[in-house]
Amino acid sequence: MIAERSVSVEDRLALEDLYASYAATLDDGRFEEWPEFFTDPCTYRIVPRENYDRNLPLATLSFESKGMLRDRVYGITQTLFHEPYYQRHLISGFVIATDADDVYTVRANYLVVRTKAGSLSEVYSAGRYADVVVREGGRLLFREKVCIFDSELIPNSLIYPL
Amino acid sequence: MIAERSVSVEDRLALEDLYASYAATLDDGRFEEWPEFFTDPCTYRIVPRENYDRNLPLATLSFESKGMLRDRVYGITQTLFHEPYYQRHLISGFVIATDADDVYTVRANYLVVRTKAGSLSEVYSAGRYADVVVREGGRLLFREKVCIFDSELIPNSLIYPL
Amino acid sequence: MIAERSVSVEDRLALEDLYASYAATLDDGRFEEWPEFFTDPCTYRIVPRENYDRNLPLATLSFESKGMLRDRVYGITQTLFHEPYYQRHLISGFVIATDADDVYTVRANYLVVRTKAGSLSEVYSAGRYADVVVREGGRLLFREKVCIFDSELIPNSLIYPL
Repeated sequence: MIAERSVSVEDRLALEDLYASYAATLDDGRFEEWPEFFTDPCTYRIVPRENYDRNLPLATLSFESKGMLRDRVYGITQTLFHEPYYQRHLISGFVIATDADDVYTVRANYLVVRTKAGSLSEVYSAGRYADVVVREGGRLLFREKVCIFDSELIPNSLIYPL
Repeated sequence: MIAERSVSVEDRLALEDLYASYAATLDDGRFEEWPEFFTDPCTYRIVPRENYDRNLPLATLSFESKGMLRDRVYGITQTLFHEPYYQRHLISGFVIATDADDVYTVRANYLVVRTKAGSLSEVYSAGRYADVVVREGGRLLFREKVCIFDSELIPNSLIYPL
Repeated sequence: MIAERSVSVEDRLALEDLYASYAATLDDGRFEEWPEFFTDPCTYRIVPRENYDRNLPLATLSFESKGMLRDRVYGITQTLFHEPYYQRHLISGFVIATDADDVYTVRANYLVVRTKAGSLSEVYSAGRYADVVVREGGRLLFREKVCIFDSELIPNSLIYPL
């Protein structure tokens, strides 16, 4: 399914580092750093699996530039009325392919555990990433990040990036 | 406990790739590809931890050949009456040993999150794999895969492979 | 935020092995082996995220030597009255830095799933480790292990190490 060209050990670990750093940034709530993980323009989408599998275009969220990502961060931190919560990302099962220099297709499973103040931690969203990563200026960046979540339901509304 | 002979970086990452690919196949619901991860004959067992720790032979599922695995797939996709659900595997904590050329003992923790239509994602099964992996025709395959799950209870019945 | 000095592939994988082995030891309930993962003296703390982020000193548990860790094990296995449960650690998202020979700062996300007898597996604790690992006598050991958990609530009391 995914084209098999060998990915070097260094590149593979650098890609895993990218996801670890991405998760740490979101889980720390350092949202203003989130757009810096993307190229400009870029694709960031959160899509229910039902729609993704049927090639339906509807997405829960869809952004196409760093400007749009920054707008979202502004919304999260300044204007969106919501009860704050903690996120905790567990990401594993990397399937990495590359068919051209410095363009990587990355698939990985994710689980986000949510914790609201005064509550127990709970499963929030499970699914997978279908991403395209490129190297720009020596840094790995997401050119496309698609978060495909398994449940049509998300507890309450989805506020923070996945 | 586990014999320590050094596993090369390449072999270790190839083993992690095997699990990532295994998880992706199951989580995508591509069950007809599942038997191809095994040697023939093989061992595939799903065992409650209580029984495993006490060396009790009882298993929830137990298969010994690719034919039996294919029968299971036929059951899953054609005859078993069940409500479909999505699985999402998170696999980590690989402890790998090898005591002979191309025979690997692999232990890893797994968590499977289940999502039923119209429901929230939920913890379905947590446990560990106790596997033996060999190389055949240049491909890594499971000669033994034992899924040892922590809970005696599994929500509803267990339909899909873990 | 974290100093970037390159960590070799071998060291990085050895560190991941350390966490895999640590998780396997705890999840198997081999608690008497747990103190052997630490230097002496050492720091082992379990801290709610709220307190950690505000630099408040209060910790749920705090130990400073292998002797204290062994006392804890004695408590767990001999004197603490509690309902036994299984733990299952999922650890991922390693962010590793080193600023001196053989001293590693490791951050990783963890999820612990708990299973009590006759119950379903459930999310028990999610959070992150903020650790310092050193090499002593050829073995990687925790000089500091701080478990920062997201929820102020932990289902029932916390008995086993995280």
